[in-house]
Amino acid sequence: MTFDEARVLTEESTFIALMRNLANDPAARGLSDDAAVVAIGDQAIVLTHDSMVENVHWLPDADPADVAWKLVSANISDLAAKGAKPVGVLLGYMLGNDEWDRRFADGMAEALSAYDVALLGGDTVAAVNRAETRCIGMTALGIATCDPVPSRSGAKAGDVLYVTGTLGDAKAGFDLAVNGQSAPQTLLNAFNRPTALVREGMLLAPLVNAMMDVSDGVLLDASRMAAASGLRVEIDLAAIPLSADYIALYADDKASRMIAASWGDDYQLLFAGPSDVIWPVAVTVIGKFLEGEGLSLIDQGTAVALPDKLGFEHR
Amino acid sequence: MTFDEARVLTEESTFIALMRNLANDPAARGLSDDAAVVAIGDQAIVLTHDSMVENVHWLPDADPADVAWKLVSANISDLAAKGAKPVGVLLGYMLGNDEWDRRFADGMAEALSAYDVALLGGDTVAAVNRAETRCIGMTALGIATCDPVPSRSGAKAGDVLYVTGTLGDAKAGFDLAVNGQSAPQTLLNAFNRPTALVREGMLLAPLVNAMMDVSDGVLLDASRMAAASGLRVEIDLAAIPLSADYIALYADDKASRMIAASWGDDYQLLFAGPSDVIWPVAVTVIGKFLEGEGLSLIDQGTAVALPDKLGFEHR
Repeated sequence: MTFDEARVLTEESTFIALMRNLANDPAARGLSDDAAVVAIGDQAIVLTHDSMVENVHWLPDADPADVAWKLVSANISDLAAKGAKPVGVLLGYMLGNDEWDRRFADGMAEALSAYDVALLGGDTVAAVNRAETRCIGMTALGIATCDPVPSRSGAKAGDVLYVTGTLGDAKAGFDLAVNGQSAPQTLLNAFNRPTALVREGMLLAPLVNAMMDVSDGVLLDASRMAAASGLRVEIDLAAIPLSADYIALYADDKASRMIAASWGDDYQLLFAGPSDVIWPVAVTVIGKFLEGEGLSLIDQGTAVALPDKLGFEHR
Repeated sequence: MTFDEARVLTEESTFIALMRNLANDPAARGLSDDAAVVAIGDQAIVLTHDSMVENVHWLPDADPADVAWKLVSANISDLAAKGAKPVGVLLGYMLGNDEWDRRFADGMAEALSAYDVALLGGDTVAAVNRAETRCIGMTALGIATCDPVPSRSGAKAGDVLYVTGTLGDAKAGFDLAVNGQSAPQTLLNAFNRPTALVREGMLLAPLVNAMMDVSDGVLLDASRMAAASGLRVEIDLAAIPLSADYIALYADDKASRMIAASWGDDYQLLFAGPSDVIWPVAVTVIGKFLEGEGLSLIDQGTAVALPDKLGFEHR
């Protein structure tokens, strides 16, 4: 059987719709945010769960330490997008083999230390047939550092769309990894060892109107923010920030910016806010929110057709 | 490839040892308890994660609604064992097919309603090869209702070992299900639709010295409590409480009690406490804690050899 992406997308959206029907507690935020926000006494905790599947979220020859690092980072990034201070993680681990498991543990140790989070618990299982594709899940817990905790739905008409850092580096790193290339390291690291922007998230959270992380591609993620906010978003392709390494590998043109804007795994922070704020973090203006709905693309003032795929739907 | 249980157990214990090395935050309780206990302001939250794997934790022809119910119950049972009030769950779901997913959603709806917990979030993924064995994970969040939150390690020499309800009913239900039998329903329900003892856990928690749920078999679970408490536990096989339905299906003898005591999935509460407490819940005395280490079995005063397998190691 092969990967029938269209069928998976249909089934996934059907299932998510069923789950949304069940998620009527406001803490769940309609399952349409990066994380749940649960009031505990006079505090608020932020909870998120992300899974990674072999051959979908990691390459067969990936270093297991990188898989562990990325799983932790992807989860912590969801906390960062809510301005939460990470506290700990729980791991749902499906056994590989001794060597794989040890390298995975190495990567967990590195990531837990880097983000200063605790391993709180979890579960270890194995498939009857050990050759089966494995799935590893993680839940991350954080504490909110501002009130309200930013959602995806707070963008206002007239807000500017900002993004931190550069986009597309993870895509470039993926291409390098697939081709067995070992440089430039910055791009490979962007794919294998992404960094969740915890400090940046905490600094931005009290100031933004809406915030999320760029996990599925900035076009798709921005369109989700616009939909959640009941607005239209217009993105200027010419403004998509690219790194020097990315430009050296591809080009400094419209096509390469389109690739960077429709590929995921960047884990940058994407947020909506007024145009006149002095942000405490280096950011790039890439678009604006307007009355209406949907996503539109321009390039130096000229309308550009949307690509067939805005990003990675299947995450 | 077939299920090499010994190899899996070795690999699992190696991996868990690696994770214990990382879990140095007291909230993790050394990864040796049913759940993590995290202080949040003046409250304490209780967090647990359990996974279920196709063909390991559910039969190939299981009703997906039962799988969902059991996944929720197994997680909520860990909260119950800590006397926590359940708040919500996060689901890590690997897609099956439309019909399976819908039935799973039905079971989720029933379980969330029965336990009055919120679906807070989660993640949906699919394997590239859709025929792969699936794994479904869940994280449950609760709020502690007493301080300290009971651990597995608090049993005292001289304490009595108590258990709620009857044991072995889930084993009997499993046998019925494997043989395609549809009665008695009470036994099938014990296997397919176990109930987490939330109310009982909250009533007992302030009074016990140590508590856990019986998920892997009472012999194995009691020996874990003894090890965590630095004590020896002696269990009287003759005292293992059996249901009338279980006795009717098997026998009211030593062999059938041994089966009931070494099979999991019961989700009863197992706890240590003084002998002179009037417990607010119906309980049975099944053993006692003594200085020393390990588990010993007696039957009406006579020593009994331990079975080869105390319970389900692989959970």
